[in-house]
Amino acid sequence: MTALKNDTFLRALMREPVAYTPVWLMRQAGRYMAEYNAVRARAGSFMALCKSPDLATEVTLQPLARFPLDAAILFSDILTVPDAMGLGLYFVEGEGPRFERPLREEWAIRDLSPPDPVEHLGYVLDAVRQIRRALDGSVPLIGFSGSPFTLACYMVEGESSSDFRYTKTLLYRRPDLLHRILEVNAQAVTDYLNAQIEAGAQAIMIFDTWGGVLTQHAYREFSLAYMARVVGGLRRERDGKRVPHIVFTKGGGLWLEDIAAIGCDALGLDWTVDLGNARQRVGDRVALQGNLDPAVLLGEAQGVERETARLLAAYGRGSGHVFNLGHGISQYTPVENVAALVDAVHRLSPPYHV
Amino acid sequence: MTALKNDTFLRALMREPVAYTPVWLMRQAGRYMAEYNAVRARAGSFMALCKSPDLATEVTLQPLARFPLDAAILFSDILTVPDAMGLGLYFVEGEGPRFERPLREEWAIRDLSPPDPVEHLGYVLDAVRQIRRALDGSVPLIGFSGSPFTLACYMVEGESSSDFRYTKTLLYRRPDLLHRILEVNAQAVTDYLNAQIEAGAQAIMIFDTWGGVLTQHAYREFSLAYMARVVGGLRRERDGKRVPHIVFTKGGGLWLEDIAAIGCDALGLDWTVDLGNARQRVGDRVALQGNLDPAVLLGEAQGVERETARLLAAYGRGSGHVFNLGHGISQYTPVENVAALVDAVHRLSPPYHV
Repeated sequence: MTALKNDTFLRALMREPVAYTPVWLMRQAGRYMAEYNAVRARAGSFMALCKSPDLATEVTLQPLARFPLDAAILFSDILTVPDAMGLGLYFVEGEGPRFERPLREEWAIRDLSPPDPVEHLGYVLDAVRQIRRALDGSVPLIGFSGSPFTLACYMVEGESSSDFRYTKTLLYRRPDLLHRILEVNAQAVTDYLNAQIEAGAQAIMIFDTWGGVLTQHAYREFSLAYMARVVGGLRRERDGKRVPHIVFTKGGGLWLEDIAAIGCDALGLDWTVDLGNARQRVGDRVALQGNLDPAVLLGEAQGVERETARLLAAYGRGSGHVFNLGHGISQYTPVENVAALVDAVHRLSPPYHV
Repeated sequence: MTALKNDTFLRALMREPVAYTPVWLMRQAGRYMAEYNAVRARAGSFMALCKSPDLATEVTLQPLARFPLDAAILFSDILTVPDAMGLGLYFVEGEGPRFERPLREEWAIRDLSPPDPVEHLGYVLDAVRQIRRALDGSVPLIGFSGSPFTLACYMVEGESSSDFRYTKTLLYRRPDLLHRILEVNAQAVTDYLNAQIEAGAQAIMIFDTWGGVLTQHAYREFSLAYMARVVGGLRRERDGKRVPHIVFTKGGGLWLEDIAAIGCDALGLDWTVDLGNARQRVGDRVALQGNLDPAVLLGEAQGVERETARLLAAYGRGSGHVFNLGHGISQYTPVENVAALVDAVHRLSPPYHV
């Protein structure tokens, strides 16, 4: 493989000196870009797009062609793992993911087992290899998965939810069954992410989209403990290079100290957390990734620059910050605001690294 | 008016000694009760139920007939104020509140003015007076309103939202217009709550359902500052009795110190906050109300008692805790679990008040 030309993102995750603050955006390949929508239309469905290594490679590279981003992220869905378990993932236009066979019966939970990623998720691994070739060492590639708890939420509810009634009923009524699902998920996510690393992913991110709907006590027992198990089972290196691990619990701002203690290299932060305060709380234990409110990008370019400057100042001097949004980019984002954001991060951050 | 027979709730809010921890439940008159559903069906629509003082009185008293709760809360909706401003509130079955005329145009925002509560919200004030008579001093009556920012969210979006795109676009693109809405709302909410106090409300709660979707910076500027204005303008006493004010920002767990500083008597807490840690953070500045995960009530009675005991222990010894859920009760709650909860709070809390 070609040597990496821009390793700023990886260095910032390891809190090694950098010349500027690196930036990438959650869901950077997405519906706010006309060229993405064209490929998505050609694919026919979202899942067809995810399952075609050629198309996944094409859309992964689209935002990099437009903006000088410091990392690429595999184009895929967080729910490929339960799909590979046989739950039948599909998407209803404008309504998000659904499973044909939600997990509600004890026998189905007992029958669950971690899928072999090579056998059942080969299309993702092919995409990782193909994207790495296409990137040709320009920037690092991030692999990812949903967290064991977040996968369990979708598996039990069968779709997104405002109250996660079925999952929480299981949690409070049959915690043994929820633990059984989480054990399988933790093994499955570990195997899947290690296979992504083996295929060429140079950093790993775990998306815990729904851990924040739990009490602190339940978060530790049902989400964090299983992310700790995943992080503990991940390969740390490939080809002699460290592969950093980022953990992001949306709504987890109250629990940053706990998350920083599970052995990951960086925390993703949503936009409700004050970045300066978060840095004080976690000290030099982990790097921080985030956390612009995606809605800032719905405003004017001037406001984008002002809020970017505010965030850079909040983190302050030194390495350990990867600039990002606090959540996925909105489909209503004007592309010129994304250009303004990436430019502002690169232009305003060097003084913090002198 | 008859003297109050049970003032435990009011005393706990003022952190005065009590014999046990008082308890009431957000949305305690609601769809989990068959008798509520019967009245709701008779009313024809949710708004008809809110607008009939007779029916509002009947449903307000229903949970008190079943459970020995320590407070009643006016049955109404948080959106009566913008309805009185002429936005046309209505409800779509199973989808929550909507406005016929959402606020999207600058002229409409400039035209907005605070409604006279006596003229436009007389049905609420009639309900307060009628409920007070019906309660006959058994327990105190809580009046309430949505926060200025939460009202603005619904007024601008026209309905609930997952990303509050229109509101946040206004915030980042035309903050002057959002401030204009919030100024009107703050005056309207102050007038409305003072009219409720005048009519007989013995404690006041401000529901900031959506403040938690903001960054810390924007929360202070667009939600907290206007709640501070409301709290500063509220009557502190009626008939020589203190009227305590409770402020509840859902998702505001990171900002408790800020909220405690605006002059309110108590903070409502959602279930993501650790109650013991919250008490340490706010010290003796305010009382705390909350914060059982409503999903605990979907489990078994044994679990309800265990989680209740855990919360009481987390708060610890002394007054200043009002037991409640961290969010409104779920319509799927078995009534026997509510009975078990109220019983557990009353049975397990006295040792903390010796």
